[in-house]
Amino acid sequence: MIRSLYYVPGQPLQKDLPPENFPKLIQNEEAVLWVDFINEPPEVSQPILEEFGFHPLAIDDALQETHVPRLDDWGDYLYIVLNYMNFEPNGKTWETEVDELDIFLGKNYIVTHHDYPISAVDETWVVCDRDERNVQEGADHILYRIADHLMSNYMPVVEKIDEAIDEIEDQVFNRPSHGTLEKLFALKRVLLAMRRIIIPQREVLNRLARDDYQVIDRKDRVFFRDIYDHLVRLHDLNESLRDIVGGVQDTYLSSVNNRMNEIMKTLTVITVLFMPLTFLTGYFGMNFFEPLGNLKEWTTTPVFYITLAVIFLLPISMFFWFRRRTWL
Amino acid sequence: MIRSLYYVPGQPLQKDLPPENFPKLIQNEEAVLWVDFINEPPEVSQPILEEFGFHPLAIDDALQETHVPRLDDWGDYLYIVLNYMNFEPNGKTWETEVDELDIFLGKNYIVTHHDYPISAVDETWVVCDRDERNVQEGADHILYRIADHLMSNYMPVVEKIDEAIDEIEDQVFNRPSHGTLEKLFALKRVLLAMRRIIIPQREVLNRLARDDYQVIDRKDRVFFRDIYDHLVRLHDLNESLRDIVGGVQDTYLSSVNNRMNEIMKTLTVITVLFMPLTFLTGYFGMNFFEPLGNLKEWTTTPVFYITLAVIFLLPISMFFWFRRRTWL
Amino acid sequence: MIRSLYYVPGQPLQKDLPPENFPKLIQNEEAVLWVDFINEPPEVSQPILEEFGFHPLAIDDALQETHVPRLDDWGDYLYIVLNYMNFEPNGKTWETEVDELDIFLGKNYIVTHHDYPISAVDETWVVCDRDERNVQEGADHILYRIADHLMSNYMPVVEKIDEAIDEIEDQVFNRPSHGTLEKLFALKRVLLAMRRIIIPQREVLNRLARDDYQVIDRKDRVFFRDIYDHLVRLHDLNESLRDIVGGVQDTYLSSVNNRMNEIMKTLTVITVLFMPLTFLTGYFGMNFFEPLGNLKEWTTTPVFYITLAVIFLLPISMFFWFRRRTWL
Amino acid sequence: MIRSLYYVPGQPLQKDLPPENFPKLIQNEEAVLWVDFINEPPEVSQPILEEFGFHPLAIDDALQETHVPRLDDWGDYLYIVLNYMNFEPNGKTWETEVDELDIFLGKNYIVTHHDYPISAVDETWVVCDRDERNVQEGADHILYRIADHLMSNYMPVVEKIDEAIDEIEDQVFNRPSHGTLEKLFALKRVLLAMRRIIIPQREVLNRLARDDYQVIDRKDRVFFRDIYDHLVRLHDLNESLRDIVGGVQDTYLSSVNNRMNEIMKTLTVITVLFMPLTFLTGYFGMNFFEPLGNLKEWTTTPVFYITLAVIFLLPISMFFWFRRRTWL
Amino acid sequence: MIRSLYYVPGQPLQKDLPPENFPKLIQNEEAVLWVDFINEPPEVSQPILEEFGFHPLAIDDALQETHVPRLDDWGDYLYIVLNYMNFEPNGKTWETEVDELDIFLGKNYIVTHHDYPISAVDETWVVCDRDERNVQEGADHILYRIADHLMSNYMPVVEKIDEAIDEIEDQVFNRPSHGTLEKLFALKRVLLAMRRIIIPQREVLNRLARDDYQVIDRKDRVFFRDIYDHLVRLHDLNESLRDIVGGVQDTYLSSVNNRMNEIMKTLTVITVLFMPLTFLTGYFGMNFFEPLGNLKEWTTTPVFYITLAVIFLLPISMFFWFRRRTWL
Repeated sequence: MIRSLYYVPGQPLQKDLPPENFPKLIQNEEAVLWVDFINEPPEVSQPILEEFGFHPLAIDDALQETHVPRLDDWGDYLYIVLNYMNFEPNGKTWETEVDELDIFLGKNYIVTHHDYPISAVDETWVVCDRDERNVQEGADHILYRIADHLMSNYMPVVEKIDEAIDEIEDQVFNRPSHGTLEKLFALKRVLLAMRRIIIPQREVLNRLARDDYQVIDRKDRVFFRDIYDHLVRLHDLNESLRDIVGGVQDTYLSSVNNRMNEIMKTLTVITVLFMPLTFLTGYFGMNFFEPLGNLKEWTTTPVFYITLAVIFLLPISMFFWFRRRTWL
Repeated sequence: MIRSLYYVPGQPLQKDLPPENFPKLIQNEEAVLWVDFINEPPEVSQPILEEFGFHPLAIDDALQETHVPRLDDWGDYLYIVLNYMNFEPNGKTWETEVDELDIFLGKNYIVTHHDYPISAVDETWVVCDRDERNVQEGADHILYRIADHLMSNYMPVVEKIDEAIDEIEDQVFNRPSHGTLEKLFALKRVLLAMRRIIIPQREVLNRLARDDYQVIDRKDRVFFRDIYDHLVRLHDLNESLRDIVGGVQDTYLSSVNNRMNEIMKTLTVITVLFMPLTFLTGYFGMNFFEPLGNLKEWTTTPVFYITLAVIFLLPISMFFWFRRRTWL
Repeated sequence: MIRSLYYVPGQPLQKDLPPENFPKLIQNEEAVLWVDFINEPPEVSQPILEEFGFHPLAIDDALQETHVPRLDDWGDYLYIVLNYMNFEPNGKTWETEVDELDIFLGKNYIVTHHDYPISAVDETWVVCDRDERNVQEGADHILYRIADHLMSNYMPVVEKIDEAIDEIEDQVFNRPSHGTLEKLFALKRVLLAMRRIIIPQREVLNRLARDDYQVIDRKDRVFFRDIYDHLVRLHDLNESLRDIVGGVQDTYLSSVNNRMNEIMKTLTVITVLFMPLTFLTGYFGMNFFEPLGNLKEWTTTPVFYITLAVIFLLPISMFFWFRRRTWL
Repeated sequence: MIRSLYYVPGQPLQKDLPPENFPKLIQNEEAVLWVDFINEPPEVSQPILEEFGFHPLAIDDALQETHVPRLDDWGDYLYIVLNYMNFEPNGKTWETEVDELDIFLGKNYIVTHHDYPISAVDETWVVCDRDERNVQEGADHILYRIADHLMSNYMPVVEKIDEAIDEIEDQVFNRPSHGTLEKLFALKRVLLAMRRIIIPQREVLNRLARDDYQVIDRKDRVFFRDIYDHLVRLHDLNESLRDIVGGVQDTYLSSVNNRMNEIMKTLTVITVLFMPLTFLTGYFGMNFFEPLGNLKEWTTTPVFYITLAVIFLLPISMFFWFRRRTWL
Repeated sequence: MIRSLYYVPGQPLQKDLPPENFPKLIQNEEAVLWVDFINEPPEVSQPILEEFGFHPLAIDDALQETHVPRLDDWGDYLYIVLNYMNFEPNGKTWETEVDELDIFLGKNYIVTHHDYPISAVDETWVVCDRDERNVQEGADHILYRIADHLMSNYMPVVEKIDEAIDEIEDQVFNRPSHGTLEKLFALKRVLLAMRRIIIPQREVLNRLARDDYQVIDRKDRVFFRDIYDHLVRLHDLNESLRDIVGGVQDTYLSSVNNRMNEIMKTLTVITVLFMPLTFLTGYFGMNFFEPLGNLKEWTTTPVFYITLAVIFLLPISMFFWFRRRTWL
């Protein structure tokens, strides 16, 4: 689908103009044109983009999905790639969705190209459509609005991850299981994926906020700087979360070993208690003691009571020995 | 609550002036005005801040809590965000409290905005109120005093953490338990949180100490440099403590494994001692040896004494074998 | 084997010219010459290369295999080393193949030297042979085509590694075995080897894209920049995969310990259940209880039923005790 | 205690002059004055230091112990903080002693202030006292001598640590015990503490060697550069030792697990050998086999010898099975 | 031993000239002098070096062994320290030998000083001695030859380490033992020691290749650049090997735990199988079942066969249960 918005000062907003008029429309330096390609086949998009005079390499990059945020300065237009990110917990793993938004930004026009509907673009579109004042601030301001919407979608994801970590942390200390480990690993991957998107995107915004471009008004840079600050913070949060997840994993190992320790203590206490006793009963169960045998003096009543005493005193003395070794 | 202090050279200090007068008051370049907003709703603060002529973006940032120290230079005023930090041990975890102090610093005025009472601000307020000489050094000096108070609250926290680490270290070597692990992990998180506050704050102070701002007297920079040095040291301490906590956790794992080793040794020694003996008694307990059977020669007295000897010598020889393997 | 392509504007493409003519041919500044040495012995290559006037050190480097991508600027020619990489999974390990492509790039000629046939070179050769327009863009464009082909061979390798990681991840969570560990380690080595190739190569392309060389047309730099971006992305992917492999290895250890925990629990539960019972049966198996003995009151029917009850109730009460300790 | 040395060219060295004369003495630009405060209460030191005209902040820093090496350039004097370090092994832990030496260096005077006697200062004092040529090279040369002495005390500490590591390494491979772990951790802390002292001190010396200061002769910089090189090397050594200690700790864990492996093998071999045998003897000990019962055919001599054979062959076949699994 | 080579254009090479002539000889700017001190006591070397006019600090550094590669520019001469390295596997550890080569490089002379014969120096000496053309290229070229020889001795060491790693890797996967761990740790130390030599040496060569020195011909820099590239590659290799050794150690721990897992499985399977059976036999071995007792109905033939069936079916059903838990 191709949709377009065209604003000329003093005139009502025009919509969905024929693509063949675009080159003519952007001649008017006062006007602002926004063209949005949604899931349009390359055969259709390519000739229209060529009409704008974009470099073939830039058009190629826009039509192919590459998922790497970048910013190329081609003089009278910028070619920008931003990423849309969605992570949803799904059982033990997370569903990861990363899409690309290609933007050509000229002095008085902006061309956006994406394969799937992106809510950040739609919301900006609605806002511009509703009130033309949002368009008259220029094409770079539309870019700012889109980028701002895109980035503000990241925070809830981070919060979801944060909650997931807290939950896992709880499990690690109380009931470390196999599933905990899988969840932990899935979180690690999500954070890594997120980081790979944020870092180049931060760089793009940093350049928009700092460098001198023909198509960006100097006084609008402060807005991109705002988004940049936001991304810096996101990156810091991401790093912190990665640190915490790493810490949780180390703790998991310690916790599992700790529990094994407990288990082994129980096993050892029981074995140490009963093995000698079982031997003792076995000893007196040997056929040497057969009543008809010639060892009658071993099966008299006093011997029996002495054995009984040993059987009671041995565990008691061992209990104190375990105590001293801090096993009980 | 809104409170204000107004100093004009040669006049007594005025307090709690009506907010609508603020714009007029700061016209007087000799005067110093300090306005402090404490937990004031945005509807009240916003128009007053707008009267000062601050940029809408800066006001927005001040009214929203973002918890990220920063410094924006808007020409004739600075917008500064500092953080107030409080960490209290609370059983196995730590209670973490991080709040934000927003500051607008002009040539001859300072506006502070915070949602909760902050002792550093209150103490500075009392000092300024008591003796007007503390105000006459200018608005940037008031900023210095507040920042100095804020930062000097960090040291006791670090000391508390240090003590907590020492205590845990002790536990790790002597009685590693599940609780130790939780405390260790809580410490890790506290140090991480602290680091996230100190680093950007250090950057803010560094810029105050080094860069040229209209609203800060060149010769006052040395004071901010002092706080900066303090933060550098805090950061180094924090890094050291993080290193130590990391080391303690590694040691914990080794210590737990070590104890498990001890436990397993005991288990193995006991098992290795008694299993053969129990088998031996079982062997002679088999019904083949029944006195009425045809194996009389196996139940004679010499056989019994040989068995007895084996039962005594086996443990003794094993004891020496364990010794050689350094198990006992 | 030595093959050559010679293009003079307006003339048909000439092929396989005698090596002794090369110095003369490159006098024509309009022409483009490509000479390709495939597995040619040094004795043959050296004099021909010397005829081009290349520095002895550069020729030495070209004739010796060193496998380190680099770029030396010798003024009117560049000496470039690129690497060809192939990794194939082979059971638990990977077959690693790294070869070197030496390139001398002059204003109007390119000399390539390699010991094994390289598909990237062959493909470019075919393309240039088929259509002379591919040659007329100049020697630097031929370099771009070769480099582009080389680099696009890396992506499938990364994908193969990615799949291998997913497979191993699965094994780690479900059936961690000794083979998993070996595969994991092999992957680690492959990623490390790959990284060692990509980093210097990226640096070479970065310099081609950024620096000013006599032999590279300024407007062709954008093509090298494209390959550079590709390598940057590859490097990022490589780093991510390394992170993931590291994470998988940590998880492996935790997973193995986790399984050991399960095993130990079973062992302990069984031992704790049956040791006391076995002792009990042993106790009543002692010869003190011989029917002919003087302890008749211990072998009456009620005693037997009490024992039976203990034997049933002990496991049941232990079951609940295990439950409470979250062992079952 | 306050002591002073005063040198005027052509005159004998004067000692312990009255503090009130100091300001007058340093008027003579040819002369060299060294004042040394040892454990002098602030009430005494402060007025004297103020007489020199030092900035109140610098005096404050000197009188308070802060233990952080630094260098402040106040124009016609430098304020320098250096650290004195002593680490002594003390059982399993190390005794750590870090003290501060505050120095004010002017064009023709040097003021040193410390709370405890420092041998490096005393040795320099003796050397200057003995031969006035050591003083006539100027105040910056006295600073060099003191710093040189201070730093040369570090090397023996590093060597002691190195020896301690070698000893621990030995223990880890041969008799890893709980004490080893404690010693290892103590070493880690010592190295961390040392690092925290060396890094800022290195920075101070680097600045003395590189930057331009009014009070330091350009041609004397080479001496500070010498100490700086020494500190760089110390830092490298420290990093290496930290790496090695880290490696030893990893090895400790592996070593403990390795030993546990050995122990478990013994346990398992014994259990696997005797459990079936014990069952066998138990089986034939059941009362079904009672000679008076109706199962006489189970207690004949051939059955007994078959059982005997099983009891001998089972361990032998298991021995070979263990062998194949590399357990024995 | 002191040996010297003196070359004057057009004259035959002179050897072993009297040391007292050196200062006069180097007056001739056309000539090239090489003096080599081998294990000469400081009393002899010092006055000769002083005759050259070297700075006392540089001479001190040359006469003392410090083992840290460095480069000091003293204007008309350079003071350079290079390292000679030899590592030999020796059982489980490696023999480490690091020696120092001190070089003074002037415009037309080179002075080398070392405590032990160094093959790289000897080989260069022989080459210069054999053919005076090798000397006439100047003193800096002699330095290049020595450095080149020194560095080319490193590669075989790296290869030996590489082989050692491969061997250990094999052991880790197949027969992890205590010795493996010691070898691994020794390798780690060797790589660390090597790194400590390569890094500063690389820096020295980098400066020789890049910076402007009076005594080094601009066009000879390319040779030092060649050695520098070699060292960069060595450093990369070293880092890779360190990474691999680190990976092997992690794998060792996992492998040991894995094997322990196997052992525990065997132990648990055997225990779980035989404990209930032993209890069963014990139960029927109790004296309640005495044929003369009043529980005859428990010792009838059907009961015996039921017991026999249980004894056979229990292991079989457990076998399937273990299967499902992937223990067998």
